[in-house]
Amino acid sequence: MRILRINTRTKEYKFEELGEYAGLGGRAMTSRLINKEVPADCHPLSAENKLVIAGGVLAGSTAANSGRVSVGSKSPLTGGIKESNSGGLFAHKLPKLNLLAIVFEDKPETDAPFQNIFISTDKVEFKDATAIAGMDNYPAHDKLLAEYGDKAVICMTGPVGEKCGKTATIQFTDPYKRPARSAGRGGMGAVLGSKKVKAVILDPAASESYKPVDAEAFKAARKTWAEILMGHPVTSQGLPGFGTSILVNVINEAGALPTKNFRYGQCDHAADISGEKIAEVIESRGGKTKEGCHVGCLIQCSQQYNDKKGEYLTSGFEYETVWALGANCLIKDIDDIATLDRICDEKGMDTIEIGNTIAIAMEGGIIPWGDGKAAIALAQKCGSEDPMGLIIGNGVDFAGGAFGVDRLPTCKGQSLPAYDPRAVKGVGVTYATTPMGGDHTAGYGVCQNVLKVGGDVDGHKKEGNVETSKNLQIATASIDALGMCLFVAFAVLDSENGAQVMADLVAAQTGTKFTVDDFLALGVNCLKDELDFNKRAGFTKSDDQLPRFFSTEALPPHNVTWDFTEDELQAAKVD
Amino acid sequence: MRILRINTRTKEYKFEELGEYAGLGGRAMTSRLINKEVPADCHPLSAENKLVIAGGVLAGSTAANSGRVSVGSKSPLTGGIKESNSGGLFAHKLPKLNLLAIVFEDKPETDAPFQNIFISTDKVEFKDATAIAGMDNYPAHDKLLAEYGDKAVICMTGPVGEKCGKTATIQFTDPYKRPARSAGRGGMGAVLGSKKVKAVILDPAASESYKPVDAEAFKAARKTWAEILMGHPVTSQGLPGFGTSILVNVINEAGALPTKNFRYGQCDHAADISGEKIAEVIESRGGKTKEGCHVGCLIQCSQQYNDKKGEYLTSGFEYETVWALGANCLIKDIDDIATLDRICDEKGMDTIEIGNTIAIAMEGGIIPWGDGKAAIALAQKCGSEDPMGLIIGNGVDFAGGAFGVDRLPTCKGQSLPAYDPRAVKGVGVTYATTPMGGDHTAGYGVCQNVLKVGGDVDGHKKEGNVETSKNLQIATASIDALGMCLFVAFAVLDSENGAQVMADLVAAQTGTKFTVDDFLALGVNCLKDELDFNKRAGFTKSDDQLPRFFSTEALPPHNVTWDFTEDELQAAKVD
Repeated sequence: MRILRINTRTKEYKFEELGEYAGLGGRAMTSRLINKEVPADCHPLSAENKLVIAGGVLAGSTAANSGRVSVGSKSPLTGGIKESNSGGLFAHKLPKLNLLAIVFEDKPETDAPFQNIFISTDKVEFKDATAIAGMDNYPAHDKLLAEYGDKAVICMTGPVGEKCGKTATIQFTDPYKRPARSAGRGGMGAVLGSKKVKAVILDPAASESYKPVDAEAFKAARKTWAEILMGHPVTSQGLPGFGTSILVNVINEAGALPTKNFRYGQCDHAADISGEKIAEVIESRGGKTKEGCHVGCLIQCSQQYNDKKGEYLTSGFEYETVWALGANCLIKDIDDIATLDRICDEKGMDTIEIGNTIAIAMEGGIIPWGDGKAAIALAQKCGSEDPMGLIIGNGVDFAGGAFGVDRLPTCKGQSLPAYDPRAVKGVGVTYATTPMGGDHTAGYGVCQNVLKVGGDVDGHKKEGNVETSKNLQIATASIDALGMCLFVAFAVLDSENGAQVMADLVAAQTGTKFTVDDFLALGVNCLKDELDFNKRAGFTKSDDQLPRFFSTEALPPHNVTWDFTEDELQAAKVD
Repeated sequence: MRILRINTRTKEYKFEELGEYAGLGGRAMTSRLINKEVPADCHPLSAENKLVIAGGVLAGSTAANSGRVSVGSKSPLTGGIKESNSGGLFAHKLPKLNLLAIVFEDKPETDAPFQNIFISTDKVEFKDATAIAGMDNYPAHDKLLAEYGDKAVICMTGPVGEKCGKTATIQFTDPYKRPARSAGRGGMGAVLGSKKVKAVILDPAASESYKPVDAEAFKAARKTWAEILMGHPVTSQGLPGFGTSILVNVINEAGALPTKNFRYGQCDHAADISGEKIAEVIESRGGKTKEGCHVGCLIQCSQQYNDKKGEYLTSGFEYETVWALGANCLIKDIDDIATLDRICDEKGMDTIEIGNTIAIAMEGGIIPWGDGKAAIALAQKCGSEDPMGLIIGNGVDFAGGAFGVDRLPTCKGQSLPAYDPRAVKGVGVTYATTPMGGDHTAGYGVCQNVLKVGGDVDGHKKEGNVETSKNLQIATASIDALGMCLFVAFAVLDSENGAQVMADLVAAQTGTKFTVDDFLALGVNCLKDELDFNKRAGFTKSDDQLPRFFSTEALPPHNVTWDFTEDELQAAKVD
């Protein structure tokens, strides 16, 4: 396996041996490289920043749910290091080009045209992207498939990324030939946009072999692994049945569903936007309630959501999206929410950040609370020259600045997702302390606080939640390093041998000795890289705290507040 | 003397004794109160922030140049503590109401109407401001003078402050019945706007007596003080003859005039925007080359700039404004620059921040470099609902985010003024380390580096500049505490007894023992308050550094770079 480095200014490129990066993958790879090679104090849109796309340690293997891809960079949104994680076909395709990672370096002049970069096993070609620049992602992706063949595997920055908006995603080709999978958080698309890269196309003809070194051992481990995933109710029933939106009712019931810009913990119209309701709508319109985001997924938590005419509208329609637009913006019409999800994929915007940002526009009186049509009109402006689109496309803190709003639910510049930290303190500690900024996927304390998976820790009290978050942050970083879907954690946390089987998969695939300790060390060292970068970028414990209003305003119905001190929170970080 | 506290939500008010704030004034007063009473981690636009307007220790006295006013708050622009300093009639008027300071607290609901607050000696009246809300400052100020009498002394937030834009000033009535004096930097107008205060009117009838305790001693000191000011070539000839824009040629000659967004140290068309040229234009159109910004000013560095028809266009037309729009944006037409200065006063925007922001709009391709008419059109949008106006009205870092520009000349969120820190390292150290953010007035190392006033320190080398900046920062804070115009420092630095005479003035006016040590202690303690607040707000030495491009790009013609480490810079801060 190799690393491909591409200089986006000079158009030089180099296929390199892994060297010091050998043994790493996914987030462990992207965070190590960014920490080592990017000046911590550079501007995220400057030539000195780099963007890395890497498959996990198990990318290219046939282990179930091992096809997630990591995108790493210094984040325009947080100013810190970032790993943004996506499904799609990219991670499993990279090894077919004998690649672990692609690094985009330097940047052309601001007025240089956008480029498409076609990558084959031994060659990189730069092509003018003027024909698709500014175009929405779905039609642009169609054009690229028409040009490069419908087995081409693509990632691309959308119109918002071209404008360097801080909400910009990188969208990846999914198994159904749609650019519907997002490396959503942290503005990774803006970094790619600043480097004038519109799309990256992996040669469909590339077919390097990447077989397990120990085929027998791999086969055995792979089977056990599938059994673990299929043996847990969350990964075998809850997620496949209703998608992640099964959480709407669960979190609402727990009084932790942030409503009207984090004012309440329950939403009156939760039933209208629940996973159960969404599944009903999907079935009534001939959509699909189960899809995988990548080949080899057993969980199938994605879906195909059709419009009233029965035509495809969106997929990858997540709980966090439904929450952000539905409960937090008070939008009741699920079709409006689905339309906004599609617009976010078209423009290349993080749905969590945009949902929160629309709530800020409502808070600031720009559009009325709950007005789905007005929200759609706002989102449609993004990625164009329209200055309102530039404001919305830059996220919560930015829109708060534009509209004079002071209740901004962000940590390290990134808006908080779908679990109120006052009522789910385990994930609140993660929001506060992860190097990623407000992010539930970095240590999902919802497991222990609400779902009672992997333990039972009271989400309303401080006790036990710092430790819970710390352990989850490590496990998560390890899973991200392997390129595994994070949802495997539900099964692994309740399984006796889950971590061992993951280690066995790595050992058999790579032919190295790889233990559970090695697995956890991947996560710990990854976090150390991230914390080191952020420290050098100027982050301190003051940045490890949630906005003051979470401490001063009690959250109904349980009237809980956020009550951790900065010093208490430090114990959630690896030493 | 008393402090007046006004709750902008409940409309309660209270005239209080000075208590623990006795002996303070100006910036020493505002910074102490903000540090003591405002939670360092609150949002600057939240109800917990306060805004203080205070005269100096010598406010109300007849000492020359003692009528500057200080506005303090947690800054929406920097996120740190802020003192913003202005001329005008306010400071000398406050003691006529037996007031040292007014504190605005709490805030009404976002959709509450704007209010005018009329303050007399024992009463505060709230009046609906709907009739002037959204109106430009000059016509709104005229309306207020018509309502309250033309001897009313007013301060007001403009349309940009109403929108909580981070460039928003508070404008003060000048001696010529114009709202042309600005507390310009740090977005103080946004704080007042968030509290729904449109204007504050001091009762013209108020006439409390405030005589020196030791009239004889005061008279003697006052005379010596005037002689010192009139005995120095800068304060008696340079500034009165050509205004502050006399610096255009001086700083250009020194290779330190930031040009085209801080790319070059010299500007080809410096002669077209020089103080000499401006004086020529003013005289040819029947304007005035000398005006004072407050009653009792001997320096008279302001002016009245007329348009081509000979009608009043603007005043308080400073070097930094001329530089920001002229050299940094490459605008050659001095009438365009004067028009922009007027628009900034009308909308209530800091000319330094707006000039730099327009340069960023040019850098981002929004308007062409040097296009004065396009710049005027952009500035005119500010303070309205126009989203482009919201972007421009929020300053450099904000516009950089909207337009995807990575070369942003800011420190602690505030854009750098008219002296390139690479070539004038004494002021560069101040930009980096003052609690105010990028600010030349906090420690004007230009004196020693370029003007050779108060010493001779090479601006191209590191040696001596940290110490120079530290000493200037202390002296400046002391002068700000007295309410003196900062330009007295030119004379004081070259005078043997300047500091002693200032101390004598305070002692005689207040009847206290007040020595030169007390004078310096005011400054040191003021800086300690500010550093303490910023530390608690999360600022660290990482925030005491200039953007990376100053270190990586050499500045022509002298090809100097910024080469201080964070640690070296720490010595510029008081312990």
